Amino acid sequence: MTSSPQRALPHPDRLLPAGPPELDIARELYGQVAGLPLVSPHGHVDAAVLARDEPFPDPAALLVSPDHYVTRLLHTQGVPLEQLGVPARGARGTGAPLEAEAPPQPAPREVWRLLCRYWPVFRGTAMRLWLEHELAELFGINQPLTEQTADQTYDQVTACLERPDMRPRALFHRFGLEVLATTNSPLEDLAAHRALQDDPAWDGQVVPTFRPDVLIEPGETRQWNDLLDQLGRVSGIDTGSYRGYIAALEGRRAAFQALGATATDHGHFSVEACALSEPEASRLYDRLRLGRRQPGDEEAFRSHMLMEMARMSADDGLVMQLHPGVWRNHDTAAHARFGPDIGADFPVATNFTASLHQLLDRFGSHPGFRAVAFTVDETVFSRELAPMASYYPALWLGAPWWFLDAPSAMTRFWSAVTETAGFSKLAGFVDDTRAYCSIPARHDVARRAYCSFLSRLVAEHRLGQPDARDLAVDFSYRSPKAAFRLG
Amino acid sequence: MTSSPQRALPHPDRLLPAGPPELDIARELYGQVAGLPLVSPHGHVDAAVLARDEPFPDPAALLVSPDHYVTRLLHTQGVPLEQLGVPARGARGTGAPLEAEAPPQPAPREVWRLLCRYWPVFRGTAMRLWLEHELAELFGINQPLTEQTADQTYDQVTACLERPDMRPRALFHRFGLEVLATTNSPLEDLAAHRALQDDPAWDGQVVPTFRPDVLIEPGETRQWNDLLDQLGRVSGIDTGSYRGYIAALEGRRAAFQALGATATDHGHFSVEACALSEPEASRLYDRLRLGRRQPGDEEAFRSHMLMEMARMSADDGLVMQLHPGVWRNHDTAAHARFGPDIGADFPVATNFTASLHQLLDRFGSHPGFRAVAFTVDETVFSRELAPMASYYPALWLGAPWWFLDAPSAMTRFWSAVTETAGFSKLAGFVDDTRAYCSIPARHDVARRAYCSFLSRLVAEHRLGQPDARDLAVDFSYRSPKAAFRLG
Amino acid sequence: MTSSPQRALPHPDRLLPAGPPELDIARELYGQVAGLPLVSPHGHVDAAVLARDEPFPDPAALLVSPDHYVTRLLHTQGVPLEQLGVPARGARGTGAPLEAEAPPQPAPREVWRLLCRYWPVFRGTAMRLWLEHELAELFGINQPLTEQTADQTYDQVTACLERPDMRPRALFHRFGLEVLATTNSPLEDLAAHRALQDDPAWDGQVVPTFRPDVLIEPGETRQWNDLLDQLGRVSGIDTGSYRGYIAALEGRRAAFQALGATATDHGHFSVEACALSEPEASRLYDRLRLGRRQPGDEEAFRSHMLMEMARMSADDGLVMQLHPGVWRNHDTAAHARFGPDIGADFPVATNFTASLHQLLDRFGSHPGFRAVAFTVDETVFSRELAPMASYYPALWLGAPWWFLDAPSAMTRFWSAVTETAGFSKLAGFVDDTRAYCSIPARHDVARRAYCSFLSRLVAEHRLGQPDARDLAVDFSYRSPKAAFRLG
Repeated sequence: MTSSPQRALPHPDRLLPAGPPELDIARELYGQVAGLPLVSPHGHVDAAVLARDEPFPDPAALLVSPDHYVTRLLHTQGVPLEQLGVPARGARGTGAPLEAEAPPQPAPREVWRLLCRYWPVFRGTAMRLWLEHELAELFGINQPLTEQTADQTYDQVTACLERPDMRPRALFHRFGLEVLATTNSPLEDLAAHRALQDDPAWDGQVVPTFRPDVLIEPGETRQWNDLLDQLGRVSGIDTGSYRGYIAALEGRRAAFQALGATATDHGHFSVEACALSEPEASRLYDRLRLGRRQPGDEEAFRSHMLMEMARMSADDGLVMQLHPGVWRNHDTAAHARFGPDIGADFPVATNFTASLHQLLDRFGSHPGFRAVAFTVDETVFSRELAPMASYYPALWLGAPWWFLDAPSAMTRFWSAVTETAGFSKLAGFVDDTRAYCSIPARHDVARRAYCSFLSRLVAEHRLGQPDARDLAVDFSYRSPKAAFRLG
Repeated sequence: MTSSPQRALPHPDRLLPAGPPELDIARELYGQVAGLPLVSPHGHVDAAVLARDEPFPDPAALLVSPDHYVTRLLHTQGVPLEQLGVPARGARGTGAPLEAEAPPQPAPREVWRLLCRYWPVFRGTAMRLWLEHELAELFGINQPLTEQTADQTYDQVTACLERPDMRPRALFHRFGLEVLATTNSPLEDLAAHRALQDDPAWDGQVVPTFRPDVLIEPGETRQWNDLLDQLGRVSGIDTGSYRGYIAALEGRRAAFQALGATATDHGHFSVEACALSEPEASRLYDRLRLGRRQPGDEEAFRSHMLMEMARMSADDGLVMQLHPGVWRNHDTAAHARFGPDIGADFPVATNFTASLHQLLDRFGSHPGFRAVAFTVDETVFSRELAPMASYYPALWLGAPWWFLDAPSAMTRFWSAVTETAGFSKLAGFVDDTRAYCSIPARHDVARRAYCSFLSRLVAEHRLGQPDARDLAVDFSYRSPKAAFRLG
Repeated sequence: MTSSPQRALPHPDRLLPAGPPELDIARELYGQVAGLPLVSPHGHVDAAVLARDEPFPDPAALLVSPDHYVTRLLHTQGVPLEQLGVPARGARGTGAPLEAEAPPQPAPREVWRLLCRYWPVFRGTAMRLWLEHELAELFGINQPLTEQTADQTYDQVTACLERPDMRPRALFHRFGLEVLATTNSPLEDLAAHRALQDDPAWDGQVVPTFRPDVLIEPGETRQWNDLLDQLGRVSGIDTGSYRGYIAALEGRRAAFQALGATATDHGHFSVEACALSEPEASRLYDRLRLGRRQPGDEEAFRSHMLMEMARMSADDGLVMQLHPGVWRNHDTAAHARFGPDIGADFPVATNFTASLHQLLDRFGSHPGFRAVAFTVDETVFSRELAPMASYYPALWLGAPWWFLDAPSAMTRFWSAVTETAGFSKLAGFVDDTRAYCSIPARHDVARRAYCSFLSRLVAEHRLGQPDARDLAVDFSYRSPKAAFRLG
């Protein structure tokens, strides 16, 4: 028997193969990459957390309430999101709390108790692996959470949070973060990024990422006009015309690049990309601005603008991240109450071969262009992504993402793509997280799973051990830097 | 070498991992669940078999002719279904044998000889695992079937069938069946269920399941009107109006519940569900009844009625089973001759995220509502079902079903869903069988495969052994009872 | 540790399981099939290579330039196809080199240096396994290629190519090829096949395959009329009418059969098959010939003609190979410059259950008909192909193909289909290659992977060892001969 009820968590060999010869090989590979710096090219941590460098308020606010991976699973047990500290927003979706409606926020200790009570629900999930890692590494908690130990562990975490070495900047170094990319609207002034860059006491690398989805995907007319007017103000370029709109987007891209951005990010329902002529695009833009929409106009504009984004990337070198195929805000009542990003976004079937035909035909071999494709539809791994990435120089394979960034799912991805595309087009791992403290745990899980994957190839003589060593370092450190043109 | 040509079948460690440490772990887990009672929440055994409790007629009628899993594979070798004892029906599809056309039924011994002759065709299939288990456990046959041993094994099975402990009720207890759900049309009078319930000598639990497909999916007008007229008669409520039709369905649900039903079952081509207003639904119903159909009317009505079924489930608590994505009666000549359920139903791509949007948006967090989703399209496991089941409290994950209830396919399912959704939403295993004697074998295969799956997680330190023990019992016994609200 | 930097390539246990008991079982199985003759029922080697029996010109022309599996991966690194010796063609797509445009062909030694330089890019791919096997077996090269050893290995291969035992016919016997099928347009005169058949010094079996895609899929009118006029000339039957066109196709099928053909091959975007009445088909044919096309005419004609091809197969017994789902010539600029088959063909989602309904309904149980289905969309393996092949006698399961003929992908295929369909409908392995010298390597990889797959089933007591031995021989030798009606 390899485990006992009293074992300390997490096990040092977790996620490595069960026995020799794979275990020996995987241990050696993992030993080589476990301590490498972290490169986080895609995520959702707020740069202001680092700019302000204030202590984290409490265990629930750190580990539960803002992390939809965690609240989602508690919600399956019938726990209302309110009770987990997910903030309700104003009725008009302004994000402002709605005093009249909003129940009093639960006490953080009560939220923590719910996490402890429903801890068995996390068995076998990636979330459990991450949280166990965090609890052990940051807070010295090496036993499963239970209702009995809820208060004690709450107090233990609380005590830690008061220490100076638990502040965001201290953790940045403790985590070994070499670079952290955030995700930002072109409308943001990036004040926090600027503050960090101007702060002589700060030596970390935090870079913004240009995510223009709401600006290139026409929503309801008044709302979209508001956004484009804001774009005009923040860029200083009149967006009354299509030409001005394009120039304003180019201007914001340049501003992002000046603060270190190396990538854009595009999360539309589809990556269908098809260019219009400039006069057609200009007329379409005018129609959309005036609210005189015809059927298909929204799709045609988004599709055209994805081609424009690719054209700009070929010009300015920002790496284009593409991750289609998610039905957002599926639970409309919860969306009205809590806003987006609460765990109610679900994948649908998607495709790349057909949708990206024009884009890759035009830019797939362009030396300045690079696209990194993510998806939550596993069917395209071997069918579309690997074949295309094994031909077009510009297309890289993004990490298995979101619901798929767990050990078995990642292993399926690597197995599905490497036989066709080899390892040279893998972009490494992206943590894609809002939960700052989960970053090292997520990278650690990915590195362990990857070393296990390689160890099996070595043990079956499909790969030499020196090659595996090289590939483990590529994945953990060199590939994400290369793929995202970081440093 | 771990096997020899003379080995006795089936091997006690079959389906468990090949070696330590996984094998030791899996053996311990399996030892704990092997003898647990069987919970069969979804199947197609006829309750009359138990009500009448007559001996099974012969080996072919027991193990071959009525089981399309078995006749299907023999058919691939060019054996006509007639020769396997599949009854031809009347030309007009009445189900009555057509004297003029129908060839004489083959002798059961001839059917058995065909099974023995083509036994190698079953190598590697789930059907072989089940049959080997049945042959050994019930009839003491521990060697592969061959043409040479056909007559001897036929006689051996025949002799057993005459014994009183081989009658359906005796087997019910010998199998350790705690509860057996059948599948029933709302038009059935459920006489056999009533007889069992009223029989003081019977202490088993056999419950009906409400399957209204043909009543909510408008077929050819005259035929559909016939069915709805029957619904009126059996419910005692006039189905001339939409309101009456709804009331009649509600009445039948209540009648099913009175006989122990805890679930409904819906096997449409798609689970697209979208409600109409009551006036719209009423007008549509009238048009369909009058044969004045417009394009899209059938789909719109089915889609509306799936929402109505969900609404009723939220009211009365019957668990709603959803399993779309099968093209029925693909071989039209064979369908005309033999009717449905002969093995010529084949899966197609399906989806849940889009189709169930309105249904889950409305009922996915309703405390009274519960849906269990099955599918034969593996692509939706990680893409749609696991993400949605890891958010909506009301959605449970049905077992991998039909073509997928084999060891490797089930393992792919568990691997695909548990990392995202954990184990708390797994509904266990459903045998879905017409072959009464295969029930224990099917559950045994599932339990072995599940223990193997868990043992690998334990061996890789992704799950503690006490947790694995707990989860093995959940899967084998507690989860199906909980998921289907049984007892 | 099981490997060292100095190990000789390739490892004798490559692709076999890492340790006992599976390794022992797999070694025994592999030992039994490693030396069996090769049956190659589907490929793209030019019969003229064998008819002429000239020495291969140089290492690049043998192993790099004509193999789009290899040039594709080098292209991902930004190497232009020109530099790899891929011939540019005339601007009008005639295939004739365009003097004005075409750059001078690179020296073969330079091409070889590029292969050596980018050798690490092939790590983990099937191409690397094949090339390592070829380099070792044919040229005695047992170390990875590097820039340092590029010239030496180039010279080593060059020296070998001059030896008489490296000529195509000598290799045919050295490879143990029992039969090699080529792929041919009905317009070809098959002179090379005839020459081989008439050559008393030649005792190998090389058979043509009838691939009529361009003749049954109407392209641009003038071009299609040209092709059909050619069909008239080569068949000696006037194709001015639909009836003549059909007779001409039948005539060519008979001519192919006379030269040993046992199969046809159909690689359309979709396998949608739906017959028109003869008058409808005739009118449609006339419209297409006259250039008076209406929307949907092309698809309707192809769909009808697939049914006609099935009808002819039921008559003449040619096995119908179906492999839909590839978007051809995705990179239009490269297509204009280099023509087809340069590695820029990418899979899309496909289906069989719906598309083949009419075809299988009509011919699926016809004793003369046989279809072998391939695909590059893994989703249909367990969902559509295995269920249908486990019912219809006429449908066989083609090998995992193209991007999927690598060890893990093939293993996923076998795992996905055998639990449902057993092993009796597996058609074995097809190498599908233009690279003559890769044939033995490809079959060897498939045999190793298959023995590994079987060894796991044996080790888990899902299959007896004698059965596994039998199945290994079936797969390697007997099944492809049976499936393709060869000899």
